This record gives sequence, C-alpha cells and structure tokens, in this order.
Amino acid sequence: MQTIDALKAHRSIRKYKNQKVEEQLLNSILEAGCRASTTGNMQVYSIIATTAEKIKAELAPAHFNQPGVLQAPVILTFCADFNRFNKWCKQRKAEPGYDNFLSFMTAAIDALLVAQNVCIAAEAKGLGICYYGTTTYNAQKIIDVLKLPKGVVPITTVTLGYADEQPELTDRLPLEAVIHHDTYKDYSPEDIDRIYQEKENNPKYQNFVKENNKETLAQVFTDVRYKKSDNEHFSNELMKVLKNQGFL
Amino acid sequence: MQTIDALKAHRSIRKYKNQKVEEQLLNSILEAGCRASTTGNMQVYSIIATTAEKIKAELAPAHFNQPGVLQAPVILTFCADFNRFNKWCKQRKAEPGYDNFLSFMTAAIDALLVAQNVCIAAEAKGLGICYYGTTTYNAQKIIDVLKLPKGVVPITTVTLGYADEQPELTDRLPLEAVIHHDTYKDYSPEDIDRIYQEKENNPKYQNFVKENNKETLAQVFTDVRYKKSDNEHFSNELMKVLKNQGFL
Repeated sequence: MQTIDALKAHRSIRKYKNQKVEEQLLNSILEAGCRASTTGNMQVYSIIATTAEKIKAELAPAHFNQPGVLQAPVILTFCADFNRFNKWCKQRKAEPGYDNFLSFMTAAIDALLVAQNVCIAAEAKGLGICYYGTTTYNAQKIIDVLKLPKGVVPITTVTLGYADEQPELTDRLPLEAVIHHDTYKDYSPEDIDRIYQEKENNPKYQNFVKENNKETLAQVFTDVRYKKSDNEHFSNELMKVLKNQGFL
Repeated sequence: MQTIDALKAHRSIRKYKNQKVEEQLLNSILEAGCRASTTGNMQVYSIIATTAEKIKAELAPAHFNQPGVLQAPVILTFCADFNRFNKWCKQRKAEPGYDNFLSFMTAAIDALLVAQNVCIAAEAKGLGICYYGTTTYNAQKIIDVLKLPKGVVPITTVTLGYADEQPELTDRLPLEAVIHHDTYKDYSPEDIDRIYQEKENNPKYQNFVKENNKETLAQVFTDVRYKKSDNEHFSNELMKVLKNQGFL
C-alpha cells in the first residue's frame, strides 16, 4: 500500500490475535522508527518494550485495565529520557543542565515523534496499534512498575499486535477546522456550528449522548469522559512526577 | 518506495528550491496527516500553514533566523489547541475543565502525533521537511506573530518544500541504547562507553569538538549548544506562556 493510503487507513486496534510479534520483526520496526527527527540528534527518549505477562499485568491498572493493554502481545512505553544523556555528560567531564521544564518538553517531543514513527512502521508491517493517553494520568504507577530512574518520564503508551478486529474508520473534523492560513483565525459561533455539525449528526454520537443521559455531545466530554475534577487531580499528580523525576 | 524504506531514508532538509508547494498537494498531505490518533477523537490541535512572505519574515527571529525558516515555501506551526474545543463546549451548555497542565500535555501530544504524520505524508509526496525545536524556546513571539488566542500554545514547527540538498543520513545510537526489555535497565559506565563509542569516533563530531575548543563531545552540548543557563531562561518563559494561555 502507498504510504499516503496507509496513513488514511489508520485505525486504532484494541483487540489482538493470540499471536506473538517476532523479535526480529519488532526490532526492524523499532529500527525504522528511531530514524525519526530528534532534537540536536540527542535522542533523549527511551522505549520500554514489555512482553512479559507479569509486567503487562502490573502495567494494566495504570491504564485503568483497558482490555487492549491486557491482551496485546507487546506494550511500548515511550519515555522522555535525559538519564542516559546526563550519565554520558558526567562521564565526559561535562555538566548537564537538563533538570528543567524546557528539557522535559524537548525530551517529550522526541519521545512522541519516535512513537508515531514506530506506529507507522508497525502498521506498514501489518500490525495494529493503539495509543493510551492514560500514561500521563498515572505516570507514577508506570514509573514504579517499569523502574524508571530520575530523568525519565513516561509520555505515551502504544499496544502492538496482530489485529483481531476491523473497526470502522473514525470521523475527523473537516480539514478547515484544524488548519489556519498564515495566522490563526479565531472561530465565530457560526464556525463552531458548521465545524461540529457532521459529528453531532453522526448516529454513533447521538446514541452516545442518549446512553449517558446528556443533552449535548459536548456534555459527554465535560461531565463523563474528561472531567475538570479528574483533570485537576491528574495535573497535580503529573506535576509531582516532573518534580520527583528531576525536571522542575 | 516502501513505507519502511521511506522512514529509514528520512533526512532533515534545510535548503529548499524556489518552488511553491501547490495548495492541492499541501491539502492532501494535511488531510492524510490528520488521520493520526488523537485523544478521545477530540483533535485538540491546530496547524498554522504560513506561506505569506511577510509573516514568514516575522516568524524567523523566533527561530533565531535559521536560513531554512526564511527560505522554505511553507512553515507549519503545530499547536496544542483547546480554544476550539472550549468554544464548542460553551456553545453546547457544557462547562470545559481544560485549563490545567494535564490538558496542556494531552493537546501537546495530539499536536506532535499529527506533526509526525504530516511529515511522513509530505516525504511520501516527495517533499523535504525539518523540525525546529526553537518553537518551545520562543513560544510567546510565535503567539504574537500568529495571533494565537488563549488555549493555544505552539509546540513544534516544520518547514516544508522541495529539497535543494541531499544531506548524508545522520547517525543514530545503536538500537540497544534506546530500547529496554520489559522494564528499564539502567546504564553502567561500560554501557555508556559502548553506546556512545561510534558517535565519539565519528570524524564529523571529532571536528565539532575541535572547532568548539572543547575536550569532549558532551561538552559541546552542555557548554555551547544546550546550556543550563539558556534552558533555565527558556523554561521560565515557557511556564509564563502556559500561564498566559490558560493552562496553569
């Protein structure tokens, strides 16, 4: 398949066949993935590839025991990592200055670009993937399970395996909703109505609103899926993690 | 070219032909790019596609006037964006709770996954790209030039155009350096020596050390390229930006 068509065909896979991913295949995917751009060619990231059932079971609660995490043959945890670079500096008479928020963001950016590159490599090799945003919610639990040292923070998690489902392509906002030309053009109330119309008319989401006893789809997000109180709680936890791991 | 081979052939392109990128081509790249995974399908990002010479010239100082930024036909600024989603919520009797650090990270993750997807789509269509990490250094300048409202923070910048150079493939650390199996295996002094050996023996980097009058390559990073004092200064600036844009 052409690369562009492959990108357009992306689906998140949450159900996997009971089939291992060969080590050689996994390595070729990771090798290609690690060609992603990286700040100053520092590669300030690490990828934890977890296949041991015991460790996977320990990771699952950090991802709220979502079935895909329990079932996938491989869990990849992508981490911002200045630990390796700092160790190199200290061993080479150089004093690292990366215990700050900017450096955390630099390393997080590196980790995310390599994550998406790995995902595309995996899909090109016939595997399915799914991202788990729960990583930033429960970073401390993941740090404990994966034994991440100071200087390392988990940023995102990807499950990997052979797909055992063929989900529908999910909707996206029209391109005009997310693209701005030259500078940002803020949205008028009419813009918002137009941009979200297709999503709001989608029977899947209309059922979603009914099932949750809400009046609007937006309320499903604010009152059920991504609540202010949860966001504030997990923000505090994440800030504590940045402090503990030496980035604040 | 096969997708895997394309990923392996990635080079950052900093010199572009004086040739426009057709609007239709750019849209097809962005359309494919926006199929990237996104948290809860919220698409909490925006992409500012800048082609106007005047605005590009205003953006350049934020990227320390690096020639690639001045010369590229298209500058893409990838932003964490909760502004659109918040406006939708408020217009639909829903109270958004996304004025916090976790939500900033969620939106930044969205922005970075879509950025890498757009880059791969662009390369598949025969264009060259380069990332500019300067985006997080000078976010406030970029906010001013691109008129980004509250709820929007620039995360990374990509230049796009037809390559007018064929740079060598850059080195990467051996795969064992960045991959950990099951849990994190911390690095011994011998590990660090082995992992960085090839890089340190590379004549390109050895010249780099000489030119900068340093004793080790690591010192070029800590004393010249990514200095503690700069990192601390830009960390404070970035924190101010998160506060001003409503995420802290």
